This record gives sequence, C-alpha cells and structure tokens, in this order.
Amino acid sequence: MINKLIENIKRTNAPIVVGLDPMLSYIPEHIAREAFAERGETMEGAAEAVWLFNKAIVDATCDLIPAVKPQIAMYEQFGIPGLQVFKRTVDYCKEKGLVVIGDVKRGDIGSTSAAYATAHLGKVQVGSKTFMPFGEDFATVNPYLGTDGIKPFLDVCGEEKKGIFILVKTSNPSSGEFQDRLVDGRPLYELVGEKVAEWADSCMGDAYSYVGAVVGATYPEMGKVLRRIMPKSYILVPGYGAQGGKAADLVHYFNEDGLGAIVNSSRGIIAAYKQEKYASFGAEHFADASRQAVVDMIADINGALAAR
Amino acid sequence: MINKLIENIKRTNAPIVVGLDPMLSYIPEHIAREAFAERGETMEGAAEAVWLFNKAIVDATCDLIPAVKPQIAMYEQFGIPGLQVFKRTVDYCKEKGLVVIGDVKRGDIGSTSAAYATAHLGKVQVGSKTFMPFGEDFATVNPYLGTDGIKPFLDVCGEEKKGIFILVKTSNPSSGEFQDRLVDGRPLYELVGEKVAEWADSCMGDAYSYVGAVVGATYPEMGKVLRRIMPKSYILVPGYGAQGGKAADLVHYFNEDGLGAIVNSSRGIIAAYKQEKYASFGAEHFADASRQAVVDMIADINGALAAR
Repeated sequence: MINKLIENIKRTNAPIVVGLDPMLSYIPEHIAREAFAERGETMEGAAEAVWLFNKAIVDATCDLIPAVKPQIAMYEQFGIPGLQVFKRTVDYCKEKGLVVIGDVKRGDIGSTSAAYATAHLGKVQVGSKTFMPFGEDFATVNPYLGTDGIKPFLDVCGEEKKGIFILVKTSNPSSGEFQDRLVDGRPLYELVGEKVAEWADSCMGDAYSYVGAVVGATYPEMGKVLRRIMPKSYILVPGYGAQGGKAADLVHYFNEDGLGAIVNSSRGIIAAYKQEKYASFGAEHFADASRQAVVDMIADINGALAAR
Repeated sequence: MINKLIENIKRTNAPIVVGLDPMLSYIPEHIAREAFAERGETMEGAAEAVWLFNKAIVDATCDLIPAVKPQIAMYEQFGIPGLQVFKRTVDYCKEKGLVVIGDVKRGDIGSTSAAYATAHLGKVQVGSKTFMPFGEDFATVNPYLGTDGIKPFLDVCGEEKKGIFILVKTSNPSSGEFQDRLVDGRPLYELVGEKVAEWADSCMGDAYSYVGAVVGATYPEMGKVLRRIMPKSYILVPGYGAQGGKAADLVHYFNEDGLGAIVNSSRGIIAAYKQEKYASFGAEHFADASRQAVVDMIADINGALAAR
C-alpha cells in the first residue's frame, strides 16, 4: 500500500492528504438541515450530515489528491451511527482510488493490538469465512507500549500489504512533556524514531517501508533530525496551516527524491469556506472552496520544495 | 464515579475487575453454534456469540464483583456489529449496578481528544438534543501526547463525574523500551506518574481522584514507587494471573486503608473453564467456572492483603 500511496502522490504531484475530521460546527447549515430533516436531531442525523459533507468534499477534490485521513474520534463521538459513516467514508474513498489513512492512534499489547490491527487493516476470521471490519489502508499507532504493541500491526501489514504511521513527535504544544525528555542526552522522540527505523527495515515496500512515522509540522528542526534517523519511512506531517506549520519549514521532512513525506491539512481544507480567503464561495459552495484550498496547498508545498 | 467504584468495592469486599475481552477461541462451541445458527457465520454472528458469552458471565458473577473492564479492541475487530455488542455489554453491566471501565486506550490532542472523551464518557450535542454515545464510567487513556491529550478528558470527567485511568507502566515485557528510559536519572514512568498525580489533584472525588493510573502487576517494585508518587489515584492493575502477576506482589499497589487498587483478570476469569483447575465444570457450565474463578481470585488477593 506504500507503493500505491507513492504512485498516487506522483500521479497527482501532490504530497498532501486531506484530513476528514468533520466537526458539526464545520458543516454548512443547509447540509445539517437536510440530514436532520431525514433522520431527525439524532446521532443518526448528525452522522448523515457528516456523510453528506464528506461526500461533497471527496467528490470535489479526489482527482487532485492521493489520500485522505479520516480521524475516527470525530465519528466515534456519534456512537454506532458515527462509526457506520466512518466505514462508509473509508469505502467511498477507496472506490474513488484514494489511499485511506485511518487516524485511529490505537495501541495496546499482544492479542489486543492484534485485534486493533485486524479491525483497521486486516480481516477477521469467523468460522470458515473472513470479513474486513473497517479496511483502511494505513492506520496511525501509538508507540508508548513498545514493540509488543507494534509487532501485531507489522504482522498484519506484512500479510495484507497495508501500512502504519507510528506517533514519534506530535504537533501539539505539550507534546514535549514526555516526547522531548532527554534520555542519555537525546530526546525520547529520537529513540522512538530509531525503533521506527528498525521496524521499518523489517517491512519494506519498493523504495519505502510500510512503516511510517507521524512528525508534527510545528517542530521543523526535529523533523530534519527525524528525517535522517528514519530514511525509509514515509513521514505523515500534521499541523500544517491551522496549527501553524508553514511550507518552507516542511521541506526538511522530504528526502532528496522529493518523496518521503505527506502533509495533512484538515480544517484548512474541509472548513475552507469559513476562512476569509475563501468566503466568496459561500456556504452553499463549501466543496468548491475546499477544492480551491487543495489547489493552493499543493502550490504552496510544491513551491517550497522547488525553492529549496 | 470513583466514589461509586469505591462503594462497590467495599460492598463486595472485592478489589477486582473482570476483563470482558472475549476472543472467539474462548467461547464454548455450543454458544458459537447458537449464535451462528441465528445470524450466520458473519460478523453479526460472531458479535452475537460474544454477547451471549458476556451475558452469561456477567449474570454469573455480577453479585460478587464491583466492576467490569470490556476491552474495546476485541469488539472493534468485528466491525460495526462488534461495537454494537460493546455498547450492549456496557449498558447491560450498568443495569446490573457494575462500574464499567472502557479499556479503550484512546489519546489524541485538543478537539480530537475531546471527541474521544465525548464518545466514551460524555454526551454529544446534536442540534438541541444530547445523546450518550458509548457511556462507559471510566476510560483508559494513553499519555504519550502530554497534557493537551489529557485535559479534554479531565473536562468531561469534571462535568459528568466520570473517570480515567492513564497508562503509566504497562504489564507487557517490552513496556520498558520507552517507559523505563532514564530521564535525569529517573525512569520515564515516574515522570508520567507525577503528571498523573498533578492531574489527579485537579479532579477529586471524596477520598480518591477521578484520575487513576494503569500499572502492570508484573512490575511490583515499580508499583510500590508509583503508589507513593500518586497517593490519591486508584491504580488499575492488569497482568494478574495469566500474565504472571501474583497476589503477594500486589499488596504494594494498595494504600494502608486497603483501598487504592483494583486488580484486573480477563482470560483467567472468562476462559476459566479451559484451565485444568476448573475443567470439571465443562464447557456447558463455563459461567459457573468463571464464578468459581472470581471467588478464588478474591480470596487470593484478600488473603495477601490480610497477611501483609
């Protein structure tokens, strides 16, 4: 699946991923009204609104982008109906040829991690039959529990040709509380990065590994170091745009070949129509605003890459 | 909810929690057969088998125990039908007066962590109405992202009088890879423990905090230190029994008042009928075997506490 991600990135010339993290407050009133009219002011109604919103944005942007990253928490908060729409979104994006990165940040140990890997990347055996529970192409994984938590994901990645992105250095202000603490004079995130590089070696695609890393756009100096530590890992970069990460800072996350990183934007794309810059589209044409925001983001990042 | 947990523990005189982590391989053939006959060899069928299994065990043990801890991964692997049974299990256990600890190990940042907190502990607003998505009483939370990831959970705990258990030192063999690394001469898990103590102070019930910690039974020396660092936090202790933790080692996780810790057993209880010790019950009477295993576990732990 890492090979497919890279193919998609090359085809679109767009090292970006659109974060499908819908909050109800992002969804234009006419969409919410339509969904509530159909399903009531219920979790089913909210989930339907999310679905209509997602579908419009995917339809308006899928020819420009290689991948999407739905954030499962935003669906989980609407209970079962929310998770049904998560699954529907995953399926729809795959139909459209997009690579789907499930931002699930799961992580546990042994058979429990294996169950999460099965849920999101694998197939579950029931009697003589097998089923695909959620079926994303990639999942994000939390490393705090060590190799015991990662290994079951690697096994499923090997079988299914799927991939993971392991949290190394996250984009949030307090990420340093534990991740930056010095161990033998080096920050913890570097040690996690070294383990990622080891795990990555055991699970290679053609040029890059099935095992990638999450490194926030908000810490470019750390990104530079981590790029070197994990040469074969794709870096998934959150924090561009709304969180403050700038394109010029992001060039260090890429390798010389122009590959090796994929930059996420969520709010900046899916709620573009709420920004002054795209306000002229109006809430009715929110998906066109998202398309324009995608075009601008690609130009911004490719411009910075060309200028390095 | 920490007050209710403590009330339940005092009433049952049982500082234990039963982990409802059903694997299909634990489920007796007659239960699987019944479920598959009704729903086919499908994820619905598997989920139904899990439900019948859970219900029998809860019915057979609920008068003896204060709490249950369903592990969501084991349900998530059966997709939507699995998560429907997770919810059904949560609801059923609450009806029976049990405290429900959702072992979900979620953790993200900002609005995403808030969405997870809403999903598992809170209520979601849809238009003018509110709904309870999964509605556990406690959730387990991963601390790798720092305060930004924990704060939204604390907010919901404050509003809803719910609680969390933060992963500090996990029970698995490789937990030391990152958790034990020395920062200024002290292991990382101690620093996490100190943050837990801080967060705990901001969110107190009567005698204990709404903010607890997970510390594996397999590391009793560390448990002793962490007990001191986090005096007001309940410690949720996995790793007893099947993973190797012994009752004598666990006394250090308790405070002088005999409170402060709750010991989990999953496989050791729910798959008791598969152990030689309980084999005479037979697969038909698996729930009675679970009841006997609960009785034995309570005696084992209370015996160790009395002997200290």
